[in-house]
Amino acid sequence: MTAFASRMDNVSGSAIRELFKLLGDPKIISFGGGNPSKDSFPVDLVRQMTDKILAEKGTVVLQYGATEGYKPYIEACLEYLRARKGLVGTPANMLALSGSMQGIDLITRIFVNPGDAVLVESPSFLGALQTFNLYQAKLVPVEMEEDGIVIETLERLMKEHKPKLFYCIPTFQNPTGRTLSAKKRRQVAELARKYDVIVIEDDPYCELRYTGEPLPTIKSFDEDGHVILLSSFSKTLSPGLRVGNAFGREDIIRKMTICKQSADTHSCNITQAIAAEFVAGGYMVPHLEQIIPDYALRMNTMLDALAKYFPSDCTYTKPDGGLFIWGELPKGTPALELFKRAVEEIKVAFVPGEHFFISPDMGKNTFRLNFSAETPERIEEGVRLLGGLISKL
Amino acid sequence: MTAFASRMDNVSGSAIRELFKLLGDPKIISFGGGNPSKDSFPVDLVRQMTDKILAEKGTVVLQYGATEGYKPYIEACLEYLRARKGLVGTPANMLALSGSMQGIDLITRIFVNPGDAVLVESPSFLGALQTFNLYQAKLVPVEMEEDGIVIETLERLMKEHKPKLFYCIPTFQNPTGRTLSAKKRRQVAELARKYDVIVIEDDPYCELRYTGEPLPTIKSFDEDGHVILLSSFSKTLSPGLRVGNAFGREDIIRKMTICKQSADTHSCNITQAIAAEFVAGGYMVPHLEQIIPDYALRMNTMLDALAKYFPSDCTYTKPDGGLFIWGELPKGTPALELFKRAVEEIKVAFVPGEHFFISPDMGKNTFRLNFSAETPERIEEGVRLLGGLISKL
Repeated sequence: MTAFASRMDNVSGSAIRELFKLLGDPKIISFGGGNPSKDSFPVDLVRQMTDKILAEKGTVVLQYGATEGYKPYIEACLEYLRARKGLVGTPANMLALSGSMQGIDLITRIFVNPGDAVLVESPSFLGALQTFNLYQAKLVPVEMEEDGIVIETLERLMKEHKPKLFYCIPTFQNPTGRTLSAKKRRQVAELARKYDVIVIEDDPYCELRYTGEPLPTIKSFDEDGHVILLSSFSKTLSPGLRVGNAFGREDIIRKMTICKQSADTHSCNITQAIAAEFVAGGYMVPHLEQIIPDYALRMNTMLDALAKYFPSDCTYTKPDGGLFIWGELPKGTPALELFKRAVEEIKVAFVPGEHFFISPDMGKNTFRLNFSAETPERIEEGVRLLGGLISKL
Repeated sequence: MTAFASRMDNVSGSAIRELFKLLGDPKIISFGGGNPSKDSFPVDLVRQMTDKILAEKGTVVLQYGATEGYKPYIEACLEYLRARKGLVGTPANMLALSGSMQGIDLITRIFVNPGDAVLVESPSFLGALQTFNLYQAKLVPVEMEEDGIVIETLERLMKEHKPKLFYCIPTFQNPTGRTLSAKKRRQVAELARKYDVIVIEDDPYCELRYTGEPLPTIKSFDEDGHVILLSSFSKTLSPGLRVGNAFGREDIIRKMTICKQSADTHSCNITQAIAAEFVAGGYMVPHLEQIIPDYALRMNTMLDALAKYFPSDCTYTKPDGGLFIWGELPKGTPALELFKRAVEEIKVAFVPGEHFFISPDMGKNTFRLNFSAETPERIEEGVRLLGGLISKL
């Protein structure tokens, strides 16, 4: 039969997705997901806004829209970036995206030839790794410490591999929950400029902060356009709407726009209009204030339970926000084994960490816990069961 | 500055889009667009359905969805294909798309290595040509006659170039309005099998039929899965919703799904739910019956005006449906010159046909007329003015 393209050779779909097809049982306490809490969605507000949009601009939003984005959406997002992050730009600096995942794809498309090096945090977001693999990039992992990637390693790898891209999730990283310090953010921007590397600053979790003060974006230290900031409404308003945006240098945004014409013509107008209304109507900040205490409660419940029930030779991160906690079993203890026994014996699920590394022989003893899908009671119970099982290994 | 990938070398964005930035003047009678008529959008119905969806399934549609598609959407589209086109398949044969443009991108992504040949009707849809260029395909044009591509040429080029793909818009083609005959549809499927070529059957206009009987899809003659049918709601319900689907062999759909994970995770849930409700609720066929007379009136007004006002040495197609009529000026008369004078002197716009060919030295004397954006009165007037200007060239 017709041969597939060579870019498909090393791509197999999401291993996690396959893993989780095992988990049909509703009794399972799941720390395996990565979804925002469904309790966080402002359904009634979205319903009212959607009705207003269709009543007032029905024929506009149902017609073809601009590839660049629905104008009120772009304006609202630019103003939000200015007011909330001190970033100033014009519509030529922004492209509407069908979720920020699309931004990773488009940036890779415009910059990466097969064989080009792409630096990634190690571990990193699985979806991004898969995208870079599809473009046949050479993935180079950058080791992390508590405040994000090790800067000396980043510089050494930039020198050595002359990468096109460095992909970074600076705030409450997926999968580790770690946050890149302000000092390192400045250093990343400086190194990007020095070594002519494009930084994808993927920042979907930044608004889900439960303690501490917001940090400046890497983009805010960017003097000549080496940083592209990807923002998303998936973790704040709703992932099902598929709305995000890219903010960057004009010529880069222009090239991404050309590729987006081919990718999906334009993003859905109604959902862009909903996000625009949400931001421009001033609903975002009160909404965040409303949902954050609930997320914080769940995270703190998990952290307390980890302290109480996990063996002392297990380590885990203590994030200031986001959706994930990252753990390490004692060296030599495989998390995949733990996963299989946990699902079977105690009905608790999580994600074995090896999937977030570029090579299957890395991170065998690591795991990711998500706390947004379960109640505090079930979080406590799940961690207790898991701690007990680890002690028996 | 950071070098762009080599795939960007021959890509410049839509030439038409640039051309039409000139046309801000509302006095201009435009035959240049390709949008469905805004009068065709069932705004009130969409408004009611959306409100119901958010009331009943708000937390479901606002959450992440499956890459494969929103289940009720896939079920509704499969049933529609079965009832309306006699095509039988399971959910494993279908992938939800963010508009059928995304299908062209995903199919090219899974099959085409740089340098692989892709056969295209000549002329063809500009967006598809641009996508194939982005994947660095070698584009090979297949000449057309009144009932679609010349089959002998198609077979010769399949032998000669061993293409991966043949891209075909069988019904009321963009830009020509031509329809591939039933006999040729069967032959295309047979040749695809014989020469192991994947056929992209892009059929967004098929439901906009104003005369004659529906034809079987190429897919209906496909015995071993060489044909992938792309369907769209853009021309029937609304393009702003960005919903379409691909129907094909399981292994192909599976590979496309993997690539879609990277492209945009999944298509917007709300708009898939709207389309599902529209189809499953039985609204599609009555809606088509309601909008078709208006489209037919506009097309027939244009055809009558062409007969009346255009010089006899101009030729044009007489479609049975769709949105476009294709014309040829006498050999040696450049349509781009006519376009510039028409916009300036008589305030009438259309698209010079050269943009729809793979090489800028082809189709210099051709042009595309769209009849869905103007009233019958303005169509008559525009064609009269244009005919007068051509006579003066």
